[in-house]
Amino acid sequence: MRLRNKPGAENKLIEFGQYVVSNPEEWKSKWHERFGKKQPLHVEIGMGKGRFLIEMAKQNPEINYIGIELQTSVIVSALEKQIEEDLPNVQLLQVNAQNLQSYFDKGEVDRIYLTFSDPWPKNRHEKRRLTYKDFLFSYETVLDEQGELHFKTDNQKLFEYSLISFSEKGMILKELYLDLHNSDVEDNIMTEYEEKFSKKGNRIYKTVAYFPNKK
Amino acid sequence: MRLRNKPGAENKLIEFGQYVVSNPEEWKSKWHERFGKKQPLHVEIGMGKGRFLIEMAKQNPEINYIGIELQTSVIVSALEKQIEEDLPNVQLLQVNAQNLQSYFDKGEVDRIYLTFSDPWPKNRHEKRRLTYKDFLFSYETVLDEQGELHFKTDNQKLFEYSLISFSEKGMILKELYLDLHNSDVEDNIMTEYEEKFSKKGNRIYKTVAYFPNKK
Ligand SMILES: C[S@@+](CC[C@H](N)C(=O)[O-])C[C@H]1O[C@@H](n2cnc3c(N)ncnc32)[C@H](O)[C@@H]1O
Ligand SMILES: C[S@@+](CC[C@H](N)C(=O)[O-])C[C@H]1O[C@@H](n2cnc3c(N)ncnc32)[C@H](O)[C@@H]1O
Repeated sequence: MRLRNKPGAENKLIEFGQYVVSNPEEWKSKWHERFGKKQPLHVEIGMGKGRFLIEMAKQNPEINYIGIELQTSVIVSALEKQIEEDLPNVQLLQVNAQNLQSYFDKGEVDRIYLTFSDPWPKNRHEKRRLTYKDFLFSYETVLDEQGELHFKTDNQKLFEYSLISFSEKGMILKELYLDLHNSDVEDNIMTEYEEKFSKKGNRIYKTVAYFPNKK
Repeated sequence: MRLRNKPGAENKLIEFGQYVVSNPEEWKSKWHERFGKKQPLHVEIGMGKGRFLIEMAKQNPEINYIGIELQTSVIVSALEKQIEEDLPNVQLLQVNAQNLQSYFDKGEVDRIYLTFSDPWPKNRHEKRRLTYKDFLFSYETVLDEQGELHFKTDNQKLFEYSLISFSEKGMILKELYLDLHNSDVEDNIMTEYEEKFSKKGNRIYKTVAYFPNKK
């Protein structure tokens, strides 16, 4: 994602501490307290500017949403949307998804969304891909028994890599779309990247997968 | 595949009994005797007119190839190619792949090719798809521990269905190409259908998968 210098972004994240969690480790195993409501917890990793997260949260008030994004200059755009909407079921975390298990207890998460994750095309960067086996292990840990991983991307190579990685982890595919926008899925909510790249003519790939050993 | 009436086809299959095996059950567990040479055994299911099988066999004399095709009017075209080539490492079987275990012993096959299998798009025909779970069980049985299933198709729905079916069976993907003809695979040999549908602009999908419980 392009890094635009957003002056005052750091301060804004601190200022709106009710939306941006500064001490996520301390909420581990009790996120429902933070939300003030015990309901399913869905986490989007690499949410970018937050369009998908905010829209999902608006449409599904019976679900708690956490958006994770590493970059200050990007997460601040999601924060601005949340300031406008003031949704009670949205919290934002500026953390690295590598430390997921520091923030979520075993089985605490009901669904993980990976949306247009950075492809890291070079082999030597494989470990950074959000579908690398180490990430899958941490998703398996924090997900509930009935938990699902929802993954969308326009990047063909990343999708190929990910389906192979899922199969090596023994994951089961529940849904698979090799051309999402020309499928019969009706309630798809687009992310910022999805809109941009589908307009360019790129195919959008999607899968929903789970860890059978948990079930 | 379009059924053209080929007069004399039945007779031709009988006449060239050295190429078309009339009693495949009797060769179960001893196919190397039929070929007169003990070397890896690769089986193509639904080979159609045989272009892929014959070309593979020409390029790989160190492998024994069996082509399976149900329809008389189609297998006879493969037979005609074999009559011309007289390859010692090719045998043809006019049988239904449903009975695979009647023709091959446990672990007797080293590789199975599914090439542009009939998609059977209607749900009620699911059981006829060559990647339906019952077929996968029989492939698992007849394949050697190191055995692989190679699957190519241009049919998006069939490919989606098959990857889901493979994942439910616990199969591991070794290779995956969501656009084979624009990938870095160099030694691809086209089937008749592949040539026809790629010319129409269809994407070609391919995967190589195996059964981990065998390894
Ligand atoms: C290509 S953008 C997609 C943004 C958004 N999901 C969309 O579809 O429009 C990927 C985002 O993931 C973030 N990201 C990548 N790796 C991450 C990690 N390990 N932890 C948290 N965020 C990460 C990047 O900072 C970037 O903003
Ligand atoms: C769409 S054609 C493809 C032919 C060839 N593989 C190609 O790519 O050009 C599929 C072929 O599979 C054969 N077939 C379908 N189900 C079969 C089965 N259960 N056993 C044997 N052959 C079968 C059909 O008769 C048909 O000729």
